Amino acid sequence: MRARKIEIIGIQGIPDIQKDMDIGEIIVDASRRMGLELRNGDIIVVSHIIVSKAEGRVVNLVDVEPSEFARKVAGESGKDPRHVELVLRESRRIVRMRRGLIISETVNRIVCANAGVDLSNVGVGKAAMLPLDPDLSAKKIRDRIRELAEVDVAVIVSDTHGRPLRNGAVNIAIGCSGIEPLLDRRGEVDMYGRKLTSKIICIADELASAAELVLGQADEKIPVAIIRGYVYKPSETPAKVIPRREEDDLFL
Amino acid sequence: MRARKIEIIGIQGIPDIQKDMDIGEIIVDASRRMGLELRNGDIIVVSHIIVSKAEGRVVNLVDVEPSEFARKVAGESGKDPRHVELVLRESRRIVRMRRGLIISETVNRIVCANAGVDLSNVGVGKAAMLPLDPDLSAKKIRDRIRELAEVDVAVIVSDTHGRPLRNGAVNIAIGCSGIEPLLDRRGEVDMYGRKLTSKIICIADELASAAELVLGQADEKIPVAIIRGYVYKPSETPAKVIPRREEDDLFL
Repeated sequence: MRARKIEIIGIQGIPDIQKDMDIGEIIVDASRRMGLELRNGDIIVVSHIIVSKAEGRVVNLVDVEPSEFARKVAGESGKDPRHVELVLRESRRIVRMRRGLIISETVNRIVCANAGVDLSNVGVGKAAMLPLDPDLSAKKIRDRIRELAEVDVAVIVSDTHGRPLRNGAVNIAIGCSGIEPLLDRRGEVDMYGRKLTSKIICIADELASAAELVLGQADEKIPVAIIRGYVYKPSETPAKVIPRREEDDLFL
Repeated sequence: MRARKIEIIGIQGIPDIQKDMDIGEIIVDASRRMGLELRNGDIIVVSHIIVSKAEGRVVNLVDVEPSEFARKVAGESGKDPRHVELVLRESRRIVRMRRGLIISETVNRIVCANAGVDLSNVGVGKAAMLPLDPDLSAKKIRDRIRELAEVDVAVIVSDTHGRPLRNGAVNIAIGCSGIEPLLDRRGEVDMYGRKLTSKIICIADELASAAELVLGQADEKIPVAIIRGYVYKPSETPAKVIPRREEDDLFL
């Protein structure tokens, strides 16, 4: 019996990313240095933080002038008012707010804490915002990998988000290219021949969560993982289809 | 440079599970037949459906007498009133209800759709309920594997659940044994030496999601996966710590 096996491999040797660096090229080079040629069908999961840095989505907090409202929110929570200001700038609406925790819908329509504005792994006194268009970021990395390594891979840009109902954050897909993010299994039959009626799986989020098992959250500098052996459905559907519309969500 | 690599392997040859079958023994035998000896530190992810079957948590719908309320809810949604009745019996409270979709808190305090009562992969005219105590189910499987194969593994019992905010279901941990389900990275430093302030990762859910990449949702009969190479924190903490308490949740 042939084992159905998937591998998740952390890409080592990615440098500290600066503005305008070429993430696609860096991934191709780093994987080659590890003796790992990228293959058709590989899924490359990239932590958004290096994408944000390469795209110049980093600001020095000293350059941020907090509004009156940002100061008020910060005062009630012990947060840095400049951080709150950035969170508000990145938000199109506040979804929940309590004790300094801001859950908002970002300009990209992702509902998450702090609008994804990150103070970790950016450098002291700095903040990183989510990429402006994470699906486009994923596509650019994918195109560049195709150009340099002559392989067609899928790319997922990921971020670690808290969620309602359950403690602990999980890594999810905020952008993707080359893979269908939602796997629709309706119409397939179960082991007794009964039709599945409601089985849409967010395979992009599951892949992002799987990748985090090798991604370094802290100082390990592993911001990229290859998932090899999972047969995905090729597609140009963006990860934008994952956030549920307000009118379809029982919790919004 | 040594690659940091994790493998996810689907266990084939698991039979159609009946009441009182020994899941631990079946996993040990099936993995041996694949030439895969279980190892210390392996993480075994088991779809709850086979646990529910082995524990006799299956009912024939013809034996279920729906209440007046179940009939009313079913009438408004086109659902089988006996299915609705089972959902209500498995719930300690209704969290949201709209157009036949029932989100409730189960007797195990997991908030999910239909209280986890499943009509797929059970057999025509039957329904499967979640295990009564999925942490205990995981522990029993783990103990049995230790007894038979003389290895200490972690066991996660998983189910695929929809979630607020995002389309598509993902596989999550409803029970676990031998692994710390929530990884607390607060106090670790980032790549610039800055302390992480709020990084609790639900590694048990990420492992369950990773496992689903090889688990058969439909008729593929792969209800068990081994995750090999991920270094987890051994612990007796149950998966019960994952559902957030109502007073701590901004969406409940």
